[in-house]
Amino acid sequence: MKIRDAALKLKIYQAGKPIEEVKRELGLEDIIKLASNENPLGCSPKVQEVIKDLCDKIYLYPDASNYELKKAIAQNLGVKIENVFCSTGSDSLIRAICSLFVGDGDETIMGEVSFQRYEDSTVLMGGKAVKIPMINNALDVKGMVNAINKRTRVLWFCTPNNPTGTIITKDELLSVLDLIPEDVIIVMDEAYYEYVTDENFPQTIPLLEKYKNMIILRTFSKAYGLAGLRCGYGVANEEIARYINTVVGPFDTNLVAQKAAVAALGDTEFLNKVIDENTKGREYLYREYERLGLEYIKSHANFIMVNTNRDDKVIFNELLKRGIIIRPGYLFGMEGWLRVSIGTMQQNERYIKELENILNK
Amino acid sequence: MKIRDAALKLKIYQAGKPIEEVKRELGLEDIIKLASNENPLGCSPKVQEVIKDLCDKIYLYPDASNYELKKAIAQNLGVKIENVFCSTGSDSLIRAICSLFVGDGDETIMGEVSFQRYEDSTVLMGGKAVKIPMINNALDVKGMVNAINKRTRVLWFCTPNNPTGTIITKDELLSVLDLIPEDVIIVMDEAYYEYVTDENFPQTIPLLEKYKNMIILRTFSKAYGLAGLRCGYGVANEEIARYINTVVGPFDTNLVAQKAAVAALGDTEFLNKVIDENTKGREYLYREYERLGLEYIKSHANFIMVNTNRDDKVIFNELLKRGIIIRPGYLFGMEGWLRVSIGTMQQNERYIKELENILNK
Repeated sequence: MKIRDAALKLKIYQAGKPIEEVKRELGLEDIIKLASNENPLGCSPKVQEVIKDLCDKIYLYPDASNYELKKAIAQNLGVKIENVFCSTGSDSLIRAICSLFVGDGDETIMGEVSFQRYEDSTVLMGGKAVKIPMINNALDVKGMVNAINKRTRVLWFCTPNNPTGTIITKDELLSVLDLIPEDVIIVMDEAYYEYVTDENFPQTIPLLEKYKNMIILRTFSKAYGLAGLRCGYGVANEEIARYINTVVGPFDTNLVAQKAAVAALGDTEFLNKVIDENTKGREYLYREYERLGLEYIKSHANFIMVNTNRDDKVIFNELLKRGIIIRPGYLFGMEGWLRVSIGTMQQNERYIKELENILNK
Repeated sequence: MKIRDAALKLKIYQAGKPIEEVKRELGLEDIIKLASNENPLGCSPKVQEVIKDLCDKIYLYPDASNYELKKAIAQNLGVKIENVFCSTGSDSLIRAICSLFVGDGDETIMGEVSFQRYEDSTVLMGGKAVKIPMINNALDVKGMVNAINKRTRVLWFCTPNNPTGTIITKDELLSVLDLIPEDVIIVMDEAYYEYVTDENFPQTIPLLEKYKNMIILRTFSKAYGLAGLRCGYGVANEEIARYINTVVGPFDTNLVAQKAAVAALGDTEFLNKVIDENTKGREYLYREYERLGLEYIKSHANFIMVNTNRDDKVIFNELLKRGIIIRPGYLFGMEGWLRVSIGTMQQNERYIKELENILNK
């Protein structure tokens, strides 16, 4: 078989263990999943109503133009509908961006500890992802920009950064934007945007006017609680948005996701509750980690990296046996660490109790 | 902007007009859509129950391994779970196949009047889709195999063929399979498999044992009525299946689709009703086309191509004004023809009545 060299290099993405799988493998019933940065409050009741109403309409193809959804996003962000594009999660949009800009021998630049799918999607197109070492677990924005060369096509600015939770501040971003050549695409991956409460976080939409090479990615999978439906979106100048719309499949954004996402955007009350609960959980976990004497990375998202100073695979398995699914740090090249999503207060407390038991054994 | 040359060549896929769009543009209310080969009977009531039950669980990511769905498909087809792969519709699997096998300068071979997405997906990877003229509106299977050269990576056998509805018979297929080099991938795109009632249609699953280079694609979008949910699947030897599983996104098949598809597979009663209704509608439309003196192509699917001998764009617009959405033939390079999905008997009758009115004007 003549498989493309680029495709031969790919490995299967290691996702957080699904609850069903843990039930099946360990015979457990009461399981909490703090592994995939899902929304512990679920989704808006308005979204649930929309889904119920759609259950007899799913024989129809989704609208290939995503008209209603793009309109709702455009209104929400104060941009034109022509600036918006959607697909099956940010993941699919990362692939689309690579399909557009990355070919054999091209390079993209990402943080050493950042979202794995940037590399996978670059490699699949025959490119190479250049990884710049982190500074204090945050993206080295200057270092990334300094690494730009003739082969560079895309910069992946993941902010808040998955898995470390750090942000690129407004000052940091503004200090480098004018140094980036116009033909290098700047991807602001803001999947965790809604969770950020720090006022140093830059609002990037107004920057699109000046920086025609900027693409902002957001998602309905996190704060809006639609991970299972698969709906990511992005904003960019009209030309880039048009090209992305040609590269994504015509029916990638499914019918249920299209309508559920519109309903989700409309329920700001639910969104505010989600953010409040997350901020509270974040503060609680900081306090508990301090009490336990564990190093952690201040996070602007709905997860926190914590250093157990033990074998993270062992801690992962011990937590799993107790019905708690988290993500071990070795997957991100951070041995000893855990990435734990912020749950409901009850879930956070149960997790801390079990973690403490394991560490004290 | 340094957009890849391959991506510059792409155009936006022309989908069937959505009902909402026609309502918006023409101010019509009572619309029937016979444009996208959707299932006029909707989907199984069992599927609808599953969707209702899931509406508060969509904050969870789908299982990246598609375990339950692949298991159900494997059982249904009598293959191993390792032979199965799934994604966001066949469309996404066609792209995955091109990502795996097609690079710059490579070629794939398709029928001149066949599914457009083979070409789009080939072009996006830097390849060229070689189109072999049809014989009596059917794929010229021998001609396609004779056209194989050193650059050929994939053969697209669309059967029933979209948009002409013809099949590759068992004899035709068996007469060419041994002539195809082992390093050329044979894609049997059987999206309309369930609708075929002709006993000359080959059962391809048993052929996988001998032909390691064969990939069979099927979908839940047509006879199962899940087009809006986006779920296609395929079967191939373990090695190919494993590679496809690395290339598709980890969460491409959404949570609702995964569970709905399992329920759909379980409701054979609904499936049989769908097939019966389709066969009846097909016979009815043949009789009516004969009565109206219109040439048509015998179809093995849930749509029929009919030659109006007029400007198909005009007929398309006239039908649209009367609330009937069909697909004009010029989109497929068949001026004068219409591709019309088979609807419920009531929809078929309304369509024929309006078509007759237009042709008699």
